[in-house]
Amino acid sequence: MNFPSSLIENAVNELSKFPGIGKKSALRMVLYLLKQEEAAVTKMGEAIIKLRKEIRFCERCHNVSDLALCNICSNPKRDPQLVCVVEDLRDVMAIENTNQFSGNYHVLGGLINPIQGIGPDQLQIDSLLNRIKELEVKEIILALSATLEGDTTAFYLSKKLNPLGVSISAISRGIAIGGELEYADEITLGRSIANRIPYRT
Amino acid sequence: MNFPSSLIENAVNELSKFPGIGKKSALRMVLYLLKQEEAAVTKMGEAIIKLRKEIRFCERCHNVSDLALCNICSNPKRDPQLVCVVEDLRDVMAIENTNQFSGNYHVLGGLINPIQGIGPDQLQIDSLLNRIKELEVKEIILALSATLEGDTTAFYLSKKLNPLGVSISAISRGIAIGGELEYADEITLGRSIANRIPYRT
Repeated sequence: MNFPSSLIENAVNELSKFPGIGKKSALRMVLYLLKQEEAAVTKMGEAIIKLRKEIRFCERCHNVSDLALCNICSNPKRDPQLVCVVEDLRDVMAIENTNQFSGNYHVLGGLINPIQGIGPDQLQIDSLLNRIKELEVKEIILALSATLEGDTTAFYLSKKLNPLGVSISAISRGIAIGGELEYADEITLGRSIANRIPYRT
Repeated sequence: MNFPSSLIENAVNELSKFPGIGKKSALRMVLYLLKQEEAAVTKMGEAIIKLRKEIRFCERCHNVSDLALCNICSNPKRDPQLVCVVEDLRDVMAIENTNQFSGNYHVLGGLINPIQGIGPDQLQIDSLLNRIKELEVKEIILALSATLEGDTTAFYLSKKLNPLGVSISAISRGIAIGGELEYADEITLGRSIANRIPYRT
């Protein structure tokens, strides 16, 4: 693409770095910015800069936080001996939205992915092991994606956690509530039969 | 959505202002930013702020430009008496990519759209009329979208341009090169028959 101005070219190159945003979408975003008030665009740019510059992570669970200890870890009503291990903050938000979990979290910051060069050392695994010893954690719930990377990470974690004597569980997989059997994939359906639970009325 | 940090909430709110970007996509963008180096994120934020703050528009054609007169308007090899009227800079870029046009442009900055409250006064129409008189423009090519707004704007312009004695043309509509007749919509196909041209070998 030939841009009529270096400012446009620069902004398009920067915005197209976002995942899923190509040059055409970035140009559309640039045109949107050009039509806005200068103050509004400055506010957006500053929000982006400030986000990365001032972000802090909870010392205990590594979720993003405005304080040294996040709202969840510092909440005395939540059980620090029940820890749910997740990939990133979106998973924390999703589980919090269910209002079904009263323990704490541990945010790994990614999943083991040899193709992208992400090994166990780049994830918050050592701090999880220390935390289990220090805070006498009783149960670890693995809430990782049902993908190759998620399963690899879960397997690695279980090997590290087993010697610590902590009980390990994983979120249940199966047919979604309201989902129809005929449209479910074979693996999910097969697993939901193998992992069947007693019927409760 | 409940965000674990006000910085995240702010950035998500700002990024979801972009057209086509919802809260979930914005959160995905925020997670991407958190994983980047601070310097790279600052660079992106500054590119956005600088874009809006320092952008200049060509005095003559109103396209974005680094100089008072854009590269196209100041190019002596291009014909200033042939002016192609377009909606925005993407259209200029698209036509320039064809290498088929040697005239100048006039960027309206939008189309007449009563629903969005955009009337002729908000577009660069007066400056087009002045330019035609001052620079003795001979032909105006209307290259506007084939939408209700594009047709309305073209109709309005033709009413304003007719008294000036300038010749007015519009880009041809029809079946795309390589397009198959059976998949063309009826309006395009009908118009391409009505506007048929002599066959040249």
